[in-house]
Amino acid sequence: MTETEPALRATNEAFGLSADGIAVIADDEPLRLSSGATLGPIEVAYQTWGTLNDDKSNAVLVCHALTGDQYVLGPHPLTGRGGWWETMLGAGKVLDTDKYFVICANVLGGCMGSTGPGSTNPATGKPYGIDFPVITIKDMVHVQVRLLDRLGIDQLFCAIGGSMGGMQVLQLAADYPERVFSAVPIAAAARHSAQNIAFHEVGRQAIMADPDWNGGRFLELNTLPERGLAVARMAAHITYLSETALHLKFGRDLQDRADLSYAFDADFQVESYLRYQGASFVNRFDANSYLYITRAMDYFDLAAEYDGSLTNAFRNAQSRFCLVSFTSDWLYPTAESREVVRALNAVAANVSFIEIESDKGHDAFLLDEPDLFRILGGFLNGAARHRGLVD
Amino acid sequence: MTETEPALRATNEAFGLSADGIAVIADDEPLRLSSGATLGPIEVAYQTWGTLNDDKSNAVLVCHALTGDQYVLGPHPLTGRGGWWETMLGAGKVLDTDKYFVICANVLGGCMGSTGPGSTNPATGKPYGIDFPVITIKDMVHVQVRLLDRLGIDQLFCAIGGSMGGMQVLQLAADYPERVFSAVPIAAAARHSAQNIAFHEVGRQAIMADPDWNGGRFLELNTLPERGLAVARMAAHITYLSETALHLKFGRDLQDRADLSYAFDADFQVESYLRYQGASFVNRFDANSYLYITRAMDYFDLAAEYDGSLTNAFRNAQSRFCLVSFTSDWLYPTAESREVVRALNAVAANVSFIEIESDKGHDAFLLDEPDLFRILGGFLNGAARHRGLVD
Repeated sequence: MTETEPALRATNEAFGLSADGIAVIADDEPLRLSSGATLGPIEVAYQTWGTLNDDKSNAVLVCHALTGDQYVLGPHPLTGRGGWWETMLGAGKVLDTDKYFVICANVLGGCMGSTGPGSTNPATGKPYGIDFPVITIKDMVHVQVRLLDRLGIDQLFCAIGGSMGGMQVLQLAADYPERVFSAVPIAAAARHSAQNIAFHEVGRQAIMADPDWNGGRFLELNTLPERGLAVARMAAHITYLSETALHLKFGRDLQDRADLSYAFDADFQVESYLRYQGASFVNRFDANSYLYITRAMDYFDLAAEYDGSLTNAFRNAQSRFCLVSFTSDWLYPTAESREVVRALNAVAANVSFIEIESDKGHDAFLLDEPDLFRILGGFLNGAARHRGLVD
Repeated sequence: MTETEPALRATNEAFGLSADGIAVIADDEPLRLSSGATLGPIEVAYQTWGTLNDDKSNAVLVCHALTGDQYVLGPHPLTGRGGWWETMLGAGKVLDTDKYFVICANVLGGCMGSTGPGSTNPATGKPYGIDFPVITIKDMVHVQVRLLDRLGIDQLFCAIGGSMGGMQVLQLAADYPERVFSAVPIAAAARHSAQNIAFHEVGRQAIMADPDWNGGRFLELNTLPERGLAVARMAAHITYLSETALHLKFGRDLQDRADLSYAFDADFQVESYLRYQGASFVNRFDANSYLYITRAMDYFDLAAEYDGSLTNAFRNAQSRFCLVSFTSDWLYPTAESREVVRALNAVAANVSFIEIESDKGHDAFLLDEPDLFRILGGFLNGAARHRGLVD
């Protein structure tokens, strides 16, 4: 683990939390999950940047995606590399740490310090494995809200996230409308499509097919389903990129050779790249967390939680929304953002929507996309004025 | 194995071939492969339908796709089910067995009787496994042409196939222009894209990650990498369907249950469907054949074989071409067919091209697509008149 950042240390001291960025919630009474199961106490590992103002009105919650974590900025404690949204967060950036107090917590079910399938099951003294209860996006958001309670933040200035982060933002704005002044779901959807469920199922089957998964008890038995998890990551990674991005980046270029090998080596750069993505992922991610979090995404269907009507879900929405999609994102295509926009319009919510022209695919939200920064910067500045954060 | 069909028995008798639809080629001199390796003798397992006319001008070669085989019509000897193109082949159908003599051979590297990695390596007396040489689409086509030689067919009336079958048709028309009167590549491309290579690589890694693959020696060791092959099939199967097809067919419908299970069972119909696709595939396909044939597809780049110019590839083209693509095919999108059409136009070839509006994805070529039958029927009737097959 890294040394605790100064900002986090100050936050923890201010709120009487433990020094390593862990809040314990549901310690008095276990949390009731969507499944009906209960869980508690729950540890929530988080990071913060910037300073919370006196009336606690400048807090921004960043919600991370499937394989993300609370290390929006690096160095990442396991990889030593930069954080996943360095382009977005920092002094003078869109999520301006000179103006905002930014929080990001590892999701429930994750593997970077929050309670998940790798945590110790108090009933057995061993890692939960697949005895961990199946969780939902709603459960993740419930935990985030409990963390905000602990930090004394009644209303976020903004909740923002891409992909599964965007799903959490939508869930938060639906379930806790009074707690979100502005909401920015990027490259997201109000429900997971059949195709996305299908890709996730391939990944889960790859993990569970690995004998080293050992029925989910691999931590206890000290084996690691590295091959299965790597295959799952490889399959998923293709879906994060556009066909155009793959073509421009790799085409049919060969890796370190002039001619085809006529063997099963990684002849093509795209093969080598995918193998690297798979191999490096297993060093930082827990295979069971991958099962649980993909399951939570597959289960996500916001309308279903509100009598089958997405309009109902936003009936009490109070937030200003800014939705963003990318033209080449085939995992969460623009049509799915438009469905959310239609539901928000139906309840006369304050909503902006932009489809950004990009050939980078779903991962565009993580990359250097000037249009994204310009649009979100403008939206947040306007919202900040309305919220009285700037003159 | 099934009983030999009457038509095939007659063909075999006529050409002095073995009664079970196996031709042996390269028995005098081994075949030189693209890799430089040599292979021979080579067995080619094939089926025929209809009757060859006296001047041998009515032969149609059907080229099968990655996981297809010579059983265009059923019953399939392993599954007992129908063939893969029953919609297209038969009396009164597009490939009219009352008019044409139709041949389909299992590709080199396949696992339904033609020489492949599951065949016995004469050097060791054991199955080749991954000592089998890496093959290419060009090698497959070379073998098909040797089979035509054995059948005494100088010129095919038509070569037709979808997906990898379409690749073979393009290769055949380029390498042996005088032997193809008409060529129908459907849902194909002149080279494999980076995205397609990436999906294949995921499948190969899934197979090779299965300990039961045993370094490719599973037949010898009597183990079967069923789990890895099933995962490979599942990942590939998603790419054969369109997002719309998956949505219309399954959406988020649950399988045999009213509510989510909050477990890792196949809650959604799409999960159950994919698991079935994976599980049933392993009963009829060899994992090493899957490695070799996907590799051949990845290596396919027709222009590269002709000094980097697709126009060069078709410089001597004599065939009448009819190319077909489908709007929702994201594996071989229309743009890739258009590239072939442009190259054919550049050499003033006789070429028709149609993009069929379909929401069924890549697999549309295998399904009941009335537009496909109407267009191909019209094209073949016209070609048959020009060839003097009808008045």
